[in-house]
Amino acid sequence: MSKLRIALAQINPTVGDLTGNVLKIKKFIKKAEKVNSDIIVFPELSITGYPPEDLLLKSHFIEDNIKAAKEVAKHTSNIIAIYGFVEKENKKIFNSAAISHNQQLLGTQKKIYLPNYGVFDEKRYFSSGHSHSLINLENSTVGINICEDIWHPNPTKNLAASGVSTILNINGSPFQIGKIEERKRLLIKRAKENKVNIAYVNMVGGQDELVFDGGSMFINFDGKIQVIGPQFTEKLLVYDLDEHQNQDRSQSITYSTNSINIKTSKNKKHILEKFNTTQESCIEEDQILQALILGTKDYVQKTGFSKVLIALSGGIDSALVATIASLALGPENVRCVYLPSRFSSQSSKSDANQLCINLGINLNEISIEDIFSTYESTLSEDFKNTNWGVAEENLQSRIRGALVMALSNKFGYLVLTTGNKSEMAVGYATIYGDMAGGFAVIKDVPKTLVYKISNYINLKYKKEIIPESIITKEPSAELKFDQKDSDSLPPYEILDKILELYVEKDFSTYEIQTMGFDNDIINHVIKLVDKNEYKRRQSAPGIKITAKNFDRDRRMPLSNKYIN
Amino acid sequence: MSKLRIALAQINPTVGDLTGNVLKIKKFIKKAEKVNSDIIVFPELSITGYPPEDLLLKSHFIEDNIKAAKEVAKHTSNIIAIYGFVEKENKKIFNSAAISHNQQLLGTQKKIYLPNYGVFDEKRYFSSGHSHSLINLENSTVGINICEDIWHPNPTKNLAASGVSTILNINGSPFQIGKIEERKRLLIKRAKENKVNIAYVNMVGGQDELVFDGGSMFINFDGKIQVIGPQFTEKLLVYDLDEHQNQDRSQSITYSTNSINIKTSKNKKHILEKFNTTQESCIEEDQILQALILGTKDYVQKTGFSKVLIALSGGIDSALVATIASLALGPENVRCVYLPSRFSSQSSKSDANQLCINLGINLNEISIEDIFSTYESTLSEDFKNTNWGVAEENLQSRIRGALVMALSNKFGYLVLTTGNKSEMAVGYATIYGDMAGGFAVIKDVPKTLVYKISNYINLKYKKEIIPESIITKEPSAELKFDQKDSDSLPPYEILDKILELYVEKDFSTYEIQTMGFDNDIINHVIKLVDKNEYKRRQSAPGIKITAKNFDRDRRMPLSNKYIN
Repeated sequence: MSKLRIALAQINPTVGDLTGNVLKIKKFIKKAEKVNSDIIVFPELSITGYPPEDLLLKSHFIEDNIKAAKEVAKHTSNIIAIYGFVEKENKKIFNSAAISHNQQLLGTQKKIYLPNYGVFDEKRYFSSGHSHSLINLENSTVGINICEDIWHPNPTKNLAASGVSTILNINGSPFQIGKIEERKRLLIKRAKENKVNIAYVNMVGGQDELVFDGGSMFINFDGKIQVIGPQFTEKLLVYDLDEHQNQDRSQSITYSTNSINIKTSKNKKHILEKFNTTQESCIEEDQILQALILGTKDYVQKTGFSKVLIALSGGIDSALVATIASLALGPENVRCVYLPSRFSSQSSKSDANQLCINLGINLNEISIEDIFSTYESTLSEDFKNTNWGVAEENLQSRIRGALVMALSNKFGYLVLTTGNKSEMAVGYATIYGDMAGGFAVIKDVPKTLVYKISNYINLKYKKEIIPESIITKEPSAELKFDQKDSDSLPPYEILDKILELYVEKDFSTYEIQTMGFDNDIINHVIKLVDKNEYKRRQSAPGIKITAKNFDRDRRMPLSNKYIN
Repeated sequence: MSKLRIALAQINPTVGDLTGNVLKIKKFIKKAEKVNSDIIVFPELSITGYPPEDLLLKSHFIEDNIKAAKEVAKHTSNIIAIYGFVEKENKKIFNSAAISHNQQLLGTQKKIYLPNYGVFDEKRYFSSGHSHSLINLENSTVGINICEDIWHPNPTKNLAASGVSTILNINGSPFQIGKIEERKRLLIKRAKENKVNIAYVNMVGGQDELVFDGGSMFINFDGKIQVIGPQFTEKLLVYDLDEHQNQDRSQSITYSTNSINIKTSKNKKHILEKFNTTQESCIEEDQILQALILGTKDYVQKTGFSKVLIALSGGIDSALVATIASLALGPENVRCVYLPSRFSSQSSKSDANQLCINLGINLNEISIEDIFSTYESTLSEDFKNTNWGVAEENLQSRIRGALVMALSNKFGYLVLTTGNKSEMAVGYATIYGDMAGGFAVIKDVPKTLVYKISNYINLKYKKEIIPESIITKEPSAELKFDQKDSDSLPPYEILDKILELYVEKDFSTYEIQTMGFDNDIINHVIKLVDKNEYKRRQSAPGIKITAKNFDRDRRMPLSNKYIN
């Protein structure tokens, strides 16, 4: 059986950076040519980056992207290059794959199924394709599936019925917990049910709230994973898939097809580097940590920053964020400040200090006491005869927000915020206070998972990076005397379970009740989630790691009187 | 020719308030029955409010909405009630109209064309209908178009070809400048080309950033507007349309149809109240002002607030917002504060004061000087050997933000922010400073339009409400000595034109150049717009009045290296 040498280019493009993305694509084509690959496959929309959002409404952006796709074509010779770009036809645009060979753009494959749920809005922009492009090689026929297309049975079935034995599946599939296992199950199923090889390539890199996690793979027609690439890093993955003509032509074909005939001159092939056949890391905490690190690194750098600033409270959330930032950018690019008030405990200070020693970061201390006292006296007339309460608590947090923003404005740091998903859900972060900043690293990480990841970090690096005392202390905002999170919230183990059911699974109060939770607690939690929608609307974006985050995934009205 | 008495119920439902919306619908049914209407027609999704967004992903919400739709049906007798609700069929949901009569929900019409552009995301939720329901009455046949369906030629053409002589068109169409004229042109065209009467009903009321402006109307089959309702207020509009059987059956029908036969007992009809045949107000500034007033009123009240707080600077933006708030909520529900610094001019104070006298609002003054000085001394070590600049300017704005939020937290005010569209575009508002607040009233109003509306207010109310000195002074943020907006921005007449071309029309630098603007100015403006995307992402929602606002209408990536 003859072999087809396919290179999967798991690259990290930047949205809108057409020039940079073209350079990167050309570099990977060269690499693949060096090892005599027959085909190189790039991710979905690798020319534009994904998702380009409303850049797609600019007609000059579409034109520039087409020029870029043609520029790439010019740099193909004997190799066949498949790469995602935006195709235009009769005023409609399509999410397409370019098929280039021998300096020419020979054809395209349009995406058929456009995802328009969760974080995806493709129907806002694209029209659907209705036909298949078959790439006829000497010994076999190859077809293309764009991302979502392989999740529906028909496109692959049609390609197989048209004689295709190898599917090139190009993706922009963002990370979420458990997603890679889901992809594997789906790809194995598709390969087996259609007797096709699948070469699956996924984008890598952070784009705003999304992190594309790579994990590209080759699956042969009996459903075995032959090679699986690493997650969260760029990689060229090359493998020789068996060529065969698919004989399974019994089924009727519901899409029209058109053929592109390519004769590649088969060179003598080098022996290939050996790749893994199993995933590098199956530890869930490790995958999440990698996602948070890459998401942070790319957000900071793709928005043109190099250094970040974090306000440490002495608590676990800011400790985890500082650790992630340090792993993402190097400790030399992370500045931490400790901003104590009259309510800050001595242990908060020593814990923050120990963390910075462990990370190799300098820690500045700026007391908020004088400023807070001045606010109190300035507001004394207006606040006369009122009880000390939320206004005064939030004020402290807002002074801290103003201080970090002043340092950011003065020295050009991007401020990282430290609120976790549980806090963001119930509104236990102060808007314009600790919510002030450009990127919310752990916004989609529930508190219980914050603990798990923190423990995992110390385990992974075989030393105490996040001080044990930070992990074991009782959580407190320290905005009033002897305050504890547990004063007004159920234990985080219970809170996070209710939040998962309500926020991620859209369960009703009644459905959550039937799962054994206390009615009063459920109502309290749901009320908090609903009434804090306005805060989340004004929050910094953060990295999606769960099935449903608070940004693109969940779009709730602010004026909303529905009670579950 | 016999007559069909149709009542258009231009109501203001609240998203998620199923109980409240049902009560309102039942009340209007009673009213319509009192004047012996044959049919009453409510807006699109009047059961749930529009747009319900991700409430639609909660299956219990869909069930509750179906119960609500059946509850309304029970309260129909001789009248036929048409009202929007979410229909469920085989796990799919549809944006439908319920057809109820004689205590029964007899059938539905599913929406065919689902808008998924601009502010609309209907394909995220709904499936498309593929058939027409024909309501056969004794002397004529009536059909339904749901909003978008009438903007496409086919649905109306098909209904006419099926014998329908009257189209009931139910809408959730938000206000934007010039939209009502566009609707009229379209409806007249549809009526004439299909020889059908059109009864067009539109929702009224504010829902987050959208304001539905009503303006319901009856158009007869020769394209004449018979009656047009008011904008921005609830109304029951009743009119007798001529019944006839549509003879224009020559065309082929591309949708399937199903028939509902209803025999209404025609009572003797009262003489009807006379309604306008022309629009109440065609003045553009008046429509915008009404939209801003209703949008503000509904956001405040539908989110459960009654009182608002505004920081007055002495400038025109905050003056306009205070005036709108006062018109929306009554001066007794508006509190203003003046928060001067060492850079505030005497005229700012007297202007703010005069405005409050004109509006009948008390004005408090709280100096930010002590707090600012304390920040300066607290940061003196960190800021040593740096130049006074943006950090210090923003700090003043953030002190003001913290003060209004403290008053909000203490006394329960909703804070209204005062940034206009030009400022939001180029980032001349301080994040967590003057951008701090729950609702951004004039966020979609360009500066040049802020002046026009301010002048219009004084004209409309025939007295100086916004002091002339506020309108004529040169704009300044007063964050440093002798600062003027014109120090770093082109004149607003030029800025606003470039912004319209770049933001609203998606023109490229080159296209804007060809329209005669200076290249350096264009590049400066575009760079500011692009780099301030992160600020807008964290801004409060505001009322859409233009073709493209900065919230739902324009969804730009934050990490974005595209240069036009």
